[in-house]
Amino acid sequence: MAFWKLFWNKTKVIQINQYSDNYNKIKHKILVQDFDYKNKKINIFLSKDKNINLYELEELCDTVGWVRRPLKKVKIAIEHSFLTISLFYQSNNHKKLIAFARATSDNTFNATIWDVVVHPDFQGRGLGRILIKEAIKQLRYADINTITLFADPQVISFYKNLGFISDPDGIKGMFWYPH
Amino acid sequence: MAFWKLFWNKTKVIQINQYSDNYNKIKHKILVQDFDYKNKKINIFLSKDKNINLYELEELCDTVGWVRRPLKKVKIAIEHSFLTISLFYQSNNHKKLIAFARATSDNTFNATIWDVVVHPDFQGRGLGRILIKEAIKQLRYADINTITLFADPQVISFYKNLGFISDPDGIKGMFWYPH
Repeated sequence: MAFWKLFWNKTKVIQINQYSDNYNKIKHKILVQDFDYKNKKINIFLSKDKNINLYELEELCDTVGWVRRPLKKVKIAIEHSFLTISLFYQSNNHKKLIAFARATSDNTFNATIWDVVVHPDFQGRGLGRILIKEAIKQLRYADINTITLFADPQVISFYKNLGFISDPDGIKGMFWYPH
Repeated sequence: MAFWKLFWNKTKVIQINQYSDNYNKIKHKILVQDFDYKNKKINIFLSKDKNINLYELEELCDTVGWVRRPLKKVKIAIEHSFLTISLFYQSNNHKKLIAFARATSDNTFNATIWDVVVHPDFQGRGLGRILIKEAIKQLRYADINTITLFADPQVISFYKNLGFISDPDGIKGMFWYPH
């Protein structure tokens, strides 16, 4: 199996844009080799597998201070997401989830990205960018042209740098909550 | 089968908020009786049935000037929508689709409403409002708490009147298009 690889040179992730032919059949890919983490060299993997350890995901969401959600509902949400992307690292025999994102979709016209989370230890090192770029690539591969999301104020510029536009032509994101 | 009814008094739709117990099993409901349309009295029905005539839907979208979309993709989008709501009228043996909306969802946390369309002949008479209120009701029935949509500038106040909030806490709706 040919892996698509990213190379890590100290502070910068260099993404190679050539996917192998069987890229979309691969569930786990080496994303970054020899990533410096706490004086160790670790490999970071990317996975599209929906078979996610829910406790591990909950733990990851805890690290960024999200309100806990019933695992039963998280399970349903993952099952009914069009796409999930997980980043994890493997060091010796230890495997750990460090980033996650998912998207709902009608499978053809549009998709909405939800639950983007990167472990604080791994923030600011390009992994969030890889996560979203990978989501876009996967959605484009499915011929989905309109990719949407709802961005908190502090991440609007992050998404702008990835090509997202806020309020195009005055279109407003709107929310309805129970009241 | 007990139908849940709306009564029409010249210019105003009075919605009765009591649903029958088997409401969610009913695929077609009389929504408005004796609606005045071109000097005729017609009955307006609401349907959650996904078995939609795609040509009729395309015709409806044409009336509001939408760009035509491949029917094959429309079919996929409907199949993978969590919810579709259609309004149609029946007069003698003639049945006609006059409004439509659909929502994508992860089936538990959040949903996004897309493709809201009301035939121009039936606009300004409360049917769009019924359509969205029905979508909210259905999504709430499925215990979905976050209902989102992307509103064109001219319909922002329409959705505000229905309880939608734009950019809550500075959250921005963002779009990515192929470039």
